Amino acid sequence: MFKVKVFITLRESVLDPQGSAVTTSLHALTYDEVQDVRIGKYMELTLKKNEKDVDARVKEMCEKLLANTVIEDYRYEIEEVIPS
Amino acid sequence: MFKVKVFITLRESVLDPQGSAVTTSLHALTYDEVQDVRIGKYMELTLKKNEKDVDARVKEMCEKLLANTVIEDYRYEIEEVIPS
Repeated sequence: MFKVKVFITLRESVLDPQGSAVTTSLHALTYDEVQDVRIGKYMELTLKKNEKDVDARVKEMCEKLLANTVIEDYRYEIEEVIPS
Repeated sequence: MFKVKVFITLRESVLDPQGSAVTTSLHALTYDEVQDVRIGKYMELTLKKNEKDVDARVKEMCEKLLANTVIEDYRYEIEEVIPS
């Protein structure tokens, strides 16, 4: 079994209005040290082990469904879990 | 300056309809090895250095604004960045 952590972030050049709203709210709560907030998605996938190459399969999933590669970047970490 | 990565996930006991929808879509795309998907949020904060304890401040931000602790768990990583 594999546990896969996928991190999806907006590309550097893309505006992040949700992040700006959070920055403003944090300032209103007196957290003035906050300079910037960028908001992305975090997904945890549980995959069954099969004969296919898990790295290639996860990359395909990101490209086809999980990330919008026009405006988003993605990276992932794969960890094999031995069920006890 | 500090770069803070915040990971917000739904608590184990809370249903994740968005994750279920993604699981169904991945199955439709023939990724049958996917057993479960949980979707959370990922935030990158940039903080100015000041005299306050950054760990305590980030914890407060999570508790007060970033996470809904009734249904969500959070964890964070703080990294000091020396501007070059």
